[in-house]
Parts: sequence; C-alpha cells; structure tokens
Amino acid sequence: MKLFRPVLFVSGILSFIMVGLLLVPAFFALMTDDEEYSAFFLSSGLAALAGLLFMLPSYGHRFALNARQLYLLTSLSWLSLSFYGALPLMLSHHPLSLTDAVFEAVSGITTTGSTVMSSLDALPHSILLWRSMLQWVGGLGVIGMAVSILPFLQVGGMRLFQTESSDWSEKSLPRFHAMARSLLLVYLGVTLACALSYFAAGMTLFDAINHAMTTVSTGGYATDDRSMGRFSDGILWISVVFMLIGGMPFMLYIRFLNQPNLDVFRDQQAQGFLLLVLALVGLLTLQQLLTTERQPFEVLTHAAFNIVSVITTTGYASTDYTLWGYFSISFFFIVTFIGGCSGSTSGGMKIFRFQLSWLFLRDQMNKLVHPRGIFSIRFNGKAVADDIMVSAVAFSFLFFLILALATLALAATGLDFVTALSGAATALTNVGPGLGDMIGPAGNFAAVSDIGKWILGFTMILGRLELLTVMVLLTPVFWRG
Amino acid sequence: MKLFRPVLFVSGILSFIMVGLLLVPAFFALMTDDEEYSAFFLSSGLAALAGLLFMLPSYGHRFALNARQLYLLTSLSWLSLSFYGALPLMLSHHPLSLTDAVFEAVSGITTTGSTVMSSLDALPHSILLWRSMLQWVGGLGVIGMAVSILPFLQVGGMRLFQTESSDWSEKSLPRFHAMARSLLLVYLGVTLACALSYFAAGMTLFDAINHAMTTVSTGGYATDDRSMGRFSDGILWISVVFMLIGGMPFMLYIRFLNQPNLDVFRDQQAQGFLLLVLALVGLLTLQQLLTTERQPFEVLTHAAFNIVSVITTTGYASTDYTLWGYFSISFFFIVTFIGGCSGSTSGGMKIFRFQLSWLFLRDQMNKLVHPRGIFSIRFNGKAVADDIMVSAVAFSFLFFLILALATLALAATGLDFVTALSGAATALTNVGPGLGDMIGPAGNFAAVSDIGKWILGFTMILGRLELLTVMVLLTPVFWRG
Ligand SMILES: [K+]
Ligand SMILES: [K+]
Repeated sequence: MKLFRPVLFVSGILSFIMVGLLLVPAFFALMTDDEEYSAFFLSSGLAALAGLLFMLPSYGHRFALNARQLYLLTSLSWLSLSFYGALPLMLSHHPLSLTDAVFEAVSGITTTGSTVMSSLDALPHSILLWRSMLQWVGGLGVIGMAVSILPFLQVGGMRLFQTESSDWSEKSLPRFHAMARSLLLVYLGVTLACALSYFAAGMTLFDAINHAMTTVSTGGYATDDRSMGRFSDGILWISVVFMLIGGMPFMLYIRFLNQPNLDVFRDQQAQGFLLLVLALVGLLTLQQLLTTERQPFEVLTHAAFNIVSVITTTGYASTDYTLWGYFSISFFFIVTFIGGCSGSTSGGMKIFRFQLSWLFLRDQMNKLVHPRGIFSIRFNGKAVADDIMVSAVAFSFLFFLILALATLALAATGLDFVTALSGAATALTNVGPGLGDMIGPAGNFAAVSDIGKWILGFTMILGRLELLTVMVLLTPVFWRG
Repeated sequence: MKLFRPVLFVSGILSFIMVGLLLVPAFFALMTDDEEYSAFFLSSGLAALAGLLFMLPSYGHRFALNARQLYLLTSLSWLSLSFYGALPLMLSHHPLSLTDAVFEAVSGITTTGSTVMSSLDALPHSILLWRSMLQWVGGLGVIGMAVSILPFLQVGGMRLFQTESSDWSEKSLPRFHAMARSLLLVYLGVTLACALSYFAAGMTLFDAINHAMTTVSTGGYATDDRSMGRFSDGILWISVVFMLIGGMPFMLYIRFLNQPNLDVFRDQQAQGFLLLVLALVGLLTLQQLLTTERQPFEVLTHAAFNIVSVITTTGYASTDYTLWGYFSISFFFIVTFIGGCSGSTSGGMKIFRFQLSWLFLRDQMNKLVHPRGIFSIRFNGKAVADDIMVSAVAFSFLFFLILALATLALAATGLDFVTALSGAATALTNVGPGLGDMIGPAGNFAAVSDIGKWILGFTMILGRLELLTVMVLLTPVFWRG
C-alpha cells in the first residue's frame, strides 16, 4: 500500500484532467448538433467518479515520490489515460469494440497514429476532435516525461538531459512548476501558429485545428482517409516545418524564450537531426529523379514531406510512398527506426542515441588501434559519463530484442512476414503506418486480429516509454523493493 | 613498407597453403577422368608464383606482428584466399564470370554457402569438391582466428576468450604451435567422424566427404540443388549432431582431449546455446503440430534440422521452410541473427553476446531500481570487465547499422524489400539462404546483379571478421598509425 497510495493519488489527478478534456468534445458536440455529446458527458462523469475513488484513500496524506513509484506511476498513467480515451469511442452511437477503442486510444495517446477507423470524413466531428486531442495531450505528456521524469530515472541514457527540473526534491518544486508552465505555453503557442498557418493556406478551421494538434504532437491522425494527400503543396510545406518543430527538443524553445539568442539552437542533437533530414531528402530526391520521370519540384515536395513525416514519427502520408519502387520501400522502412530528438514529441530510437553510439564506436575503434590511448567522448561540449554512454548503447540491443519478440508474436497471430515485421516496427517507434497492402500507408489496422491489436498497443506503450520504464516493472527486483 | 612487409610475408605463406590445397582437386580430377584438372593445376601454379612474389621482399627479415599489422593481415588473408578460391572456377571448361567466381569463393571461404551455381549434380566432381574444401578451410580459419587473433585484438567483446594462446609475444610461440596442432587434429577428427557417419547411413563416399566438410564448417554447400532434402531422416539427425558440434566452441573439445573430464563442457555459452536450440525446436514443433496435420516425428525432424541449420548458420535446407506458413518465415528470419557460439565455425551475432547483453540489461534494470547498489556481472564464474561488456553490447548497434546500410545498398540495385533485407541479413550472419522466391531456400543468387553480388560478398567478409576487424581499416586513425 505504501507503494501504491501516491500512485493512486496521482492517478486521481490525471482522472480529473481527463474529466476536463472530455468536456471539450462534449460541448463541441452540443454546439454542432452532434448526437455524440452523450458519449462524452457520460465518459467525463465516469472519469470523475474514478478520480474520486482514486483520491479518497490518500486524502490528507503528504508524500514524496521515489524512483519505484515514479516507474509504476508513469506506466500506469499511460494505461489509464488510454482507457479514459477509449471510453467515448465505446459509448458513441456507432460504438467500437473494447479492443478497437483501446487500440485507437493507445495509438492516439502514444502519438502513434495507427488507426482502425476508416471513412474518417463521415465520422462525427466530435470523435475526430477527440482523436486529435488524444494525440495533442500525448505529445505534451511525452515532452514533460522526457524533461522531468526520464532523466531522473536514468532510463536508456536519458540522464544526458538532466537539468534542474529533473531533480525531484522538495526544494525544486517552484522551478518544476515554472518549467511546466513554460512548456505548456510553448506547446500551445506552436500549435496555435501551426493551426493559423494551415487555416491561412486554405484548410477549413476544423481541419486546421485538428491537423495542427496531430502535426505538433507528431501523431499523424488525419480527418480523412487520404491523410494529407488531399492538400496543396503549400500546406505540405507548412506541415514539414511544424513536424520538424515537433521533432526537436522543446527545451530549446523554452530556453530561447527565457533568453532570446539564437545560440540556444547550437544543440548537437538538433543540428544532427536537421542535417540528417537534409541528407535523406537529398538522397531520395536524387534517386527518384534518376529512376523516374516525375517533375523535380513534385519529387522534392513529396520526398521532403514523407521523409520528415516518417523520421519525426508523425506518419502522415501525402502519397503511398510504397508505390515509388523497391528502393523507397526499404528506405522508408529503415528511416522508421531513426526517430527525432529526445525531448520532442517524436518516437523512434532518437538521434542522440545514434550520435552517442557513433561516438562510442569511434572511441572503440581508436582503442583497437591504440590500446593504451585515452580518448574522451564529448557531446554538446561536455564529457559524457561512461554509464550514460553505455545505457544509450544498450538501448539498441533491447530495442531490437523487443522488435524481434513483437514480430514473432504478431506472426503467430497469422500476419505475414512484412506485415508482422513492419507492424512491430511502426508500433515500437510510434510512427503509425506499416508496409504491405494491409497496414501500409494506404491501409489501416482494422483487419488485424484482436490479439494482434493488443500486442501492437502494448508495443506502442513500450516504445513511448523508452522501453526500460516498462521493462523494469517486469523484474523481480522491482517488486522486492 | 614497414607496415606491409610482414603482411606480404604471411600472404606468401597463405599462397603456398593454397598451392597445396588446389592440388587436391587437381589430382582428384586426374584420377576420375575429369577434364577440370587443368584449371586446378593452372590455379595452383599461379598461386605458387604469387606466393614467391609476396615472400621475396621480406626474405631473410625477422619480425613480430603488431596489432595494426594483424588487422590488415586478417582482412587481406580472407580477401586473397577468396581470389585464389575463385581462380579454378574462372579457368574451368564452363567458366564463371569474375563476379560469380569471386562471389562463390567468398561465400565458400566465409562458410556462408549462398551459391550462384545450379544443377549442382551435373557439375564436375572436382568443382564440387573444391567448393566443399573452401568451406572446410574457411571453418578452420575462423576458429583459429577466434582463438588466437580476435581476443588479442579485443574486437567486439572477444577479449572474454583471451587465453595463453592469444598472447602474441615470442615466448608463447611453442604454446601457439601446440594449440594450432590440437585444433587441426580435432577439426580433422570431427570431420572424419561426420563423413563416416554419413557414409554408414547411406550416402555415397563422395557425398559423405563433401557434406562432412560443409557440415562441420557450418558452411552449407551441397552437391545437389535439393540440398539435404533428398536424404533419409537418419542422415538428417546425423547432420543435426555434427552441425551442433560445429556450432560449439572448439576450445572445449581441445580441453577435453587434454583432460578427458566432462566438466570442461560446463561452459555457459555452450549450455545456453543447447538450451536455446531445445527451446526453439520445442516451440516450432508445437506451433506446427497445432496448426498443421503433419506427422509428429516428421515435424520434429524437420523442425530440428532446419532450426539447427539456421542457428548454427549452416544454411542447409531439408524442405522449403518458407512454405510452412507465415509464422515460420518470421521465425526463421529472426533465428538467422542469433548464430552459434564464439570459437566455433558459426556466424551470426553469437550466443555469448546475447548472454552478456542480457546480463548487462539485468544489471542496468537493477541499477534503475537501486541506483546505489553494486552488482557484478559474472560469466562462466568470473567477473566480466566493463570494457568487454560494453564492446559486446556495442557490437549489436554496429551490426544493425551495417544491416541497414547493406539493405539500402541492395535495394538500390533493384531488389525488393524482402530480398534486400533477408539477403543482407543472411550475408552478414553467414547463414546462406534468404527469403523470397529469388534467394529463398529453394532459389539461388544467380539472378542478383553483379553489383549486388559484390555488396553481398563484402557483407559476408564483414560478418565473418566480426565487423570491427574490417571497420577499423576504414578509420583515419588506423592509417595515421
Ligand atoms: K505517429
Ligand atoms: K552457412
């Protein structure tokens, strides 16, 4: 009980946040003659009830959270948010099954964006809005987690990003509040800028708001089965800019606000990320120009849009890139793994892990040639502690181990090799679309079996929580305390 | 020149070894009315000439090899053996192109076993014998390298296997010679036992000798397009036993000879390997019995044979396992990566790296729960030094990085996703067959483009030399000295 009481208390707080969020589509439905208002009000009421039940046992107690409680809390929070997110989808007038609703909500809150729903343009607008809001909140949550919780927990090399805000002692509480406020403001501001740009470029206000929420959160839910394929080149380029903003460390924007000086963007991870995007866009554009007869600007636009969409793990599609020939299929599959920057809304393995692993390999090779040489590994101008290095490198082993297990589990449900492998990859990296006719950019996840959907949903949460945050709950030593 | 002279000298020695080896199929062809004797005698003569040219500049000099020279020598040795191996294939009466001959020889000497040749049963027997001999010599070479060179070079965690024989000082020369002799004897003995077993179970003498050489070396070249599919269940089970023997550390056999006590087999890597094989065979047998109506013993035989064939990276096929349903395709693809034990003839990532990575992850997770706890990682009863741990773990990052690059390169030559990915994987792990109609267990590599074959051949050598041995040659610091 000592382990669980604070966890329940925080779950209660989260429940009340969901009560408020659910009221948004509820009132929106009321205002727009949309019969789904009842589903949202009912869900909101149920969330309020659950919140009270969670908070009562701990009412009046004071506590501080320790590492074990933070692990438990983090995993449980994403689970409970997913279940609240699924509620209105089950209670609507065209209800989804429990499995489908939970899949859709997990895919939303983890900003994966794989969907079981089709004919999106015919869905009630309140449901579309709710899907977009889940991604937006999930994106905010993941930045908050990366800034405050994961560096403290030292998961997968994240201690590299330790700041004063990831110090969980009582004295740092005011700093913590200030950071949370800045983050919320920046996130709101960027989303607003994105929505206004989309609107100015010709989207309807509803589409602009929805896509702004799923762009900045690199979530990828759209309001139409054609994803972004129905919009103009101008809108695609706006999307490129805001997906990139969503894929960079939000700490940089907060620092820039506190100290408006472009020097804050001299960040090795962000710069490496942008350079890599440029190189990949150049490579794919060149390859397409050499092997097809498409117009250069069209090629550049779609190469840039789709690469940025996959590398930021947004998962929008402008065209079905798996029809661009064999090279592009292998290419996009591999780009799926990379991911954006740590401290952004992106998933994937993350740029800094590739940078650290690369620096580490170079160091290893130097040592092979000069066994007694001393080399120090520096990142962003600072020496990197050995344990950070090593846990960042070990992350890739665990990543591919989980990928293999998830692929096997999906294959055992009857999925073919390409669907199983790309489905596991797209879930683990929180990208969204897979490969093949079924779950590729032109398909959706409706036809996956129920057990397959639960495997994919669990894999999404594993990926979103940087694997170890969840894995540690499966060790005996965690429960022995 | 100081760097190259000893390298040239050792290349000369290797050339003369090849002179001797080439004389075997030459005399065999003479004795069996096979017109290919000329190709082998001519190749042998060319090798002798090259050997003289290599040795002349260093005649009369004394030298000891340093780490840089060992790296260069190791990579060059495999390259030069491949070219000597290709010579008779180009000089035969039905000559292969340079690309095809080098591909076949690289695939042989690295014990990969991917082939561009078909209608094998119609080929001259001397050519078949030469292909088998290449694999047999390659298998011996890789054990020798793993025992004596790689632990000294500290590549990819191999320092774990450091013994007195991997000490390259002058005083250890007699010990080194004794070790080399024991290894050769054990390898010969195991091959002889395998050949006799095959012969007793009904193979022709020629088939028995050839398959013994490609079984013990986990190479996988066969003398018929049907691979092992045409043999009895008894032969398949004999093959299982000797593939497993080939996939275990040969040091154990040598220790057993010096000290006949079963305790020498209490080796954590060998035991983990055998347990994993048992678990995988059990899993696949169960899955096949649950989903098909095949006979239990037939299922068990083919599951055991094909799993042992893939995990030891032999690459024989008894049936086309890609026709066993979707699960088995994903299953065999993933088993491809595992590989056998270090110090065996197997390729792949190797059991000890999974064991060390797993121990490392457990340690990391313990530290996540108890940040100030002290945990020590023990393997085979001894504490594992941090640097060994870390370089074993880092190996998997480099492995998947090279896999991604090779896949992209192959896709750029026009191969589809499954062929490119499985081709890169099967080359890097030295298994042999890939997935898909083209390069799957029922196909061969003849239709791959020339540039694709060179990419695959280079990938095989990278895999065979544990990646870093070759990669280090690509660093500027290596050449700066
Ligand atoms: K996404
Ligand atoms: K092989």
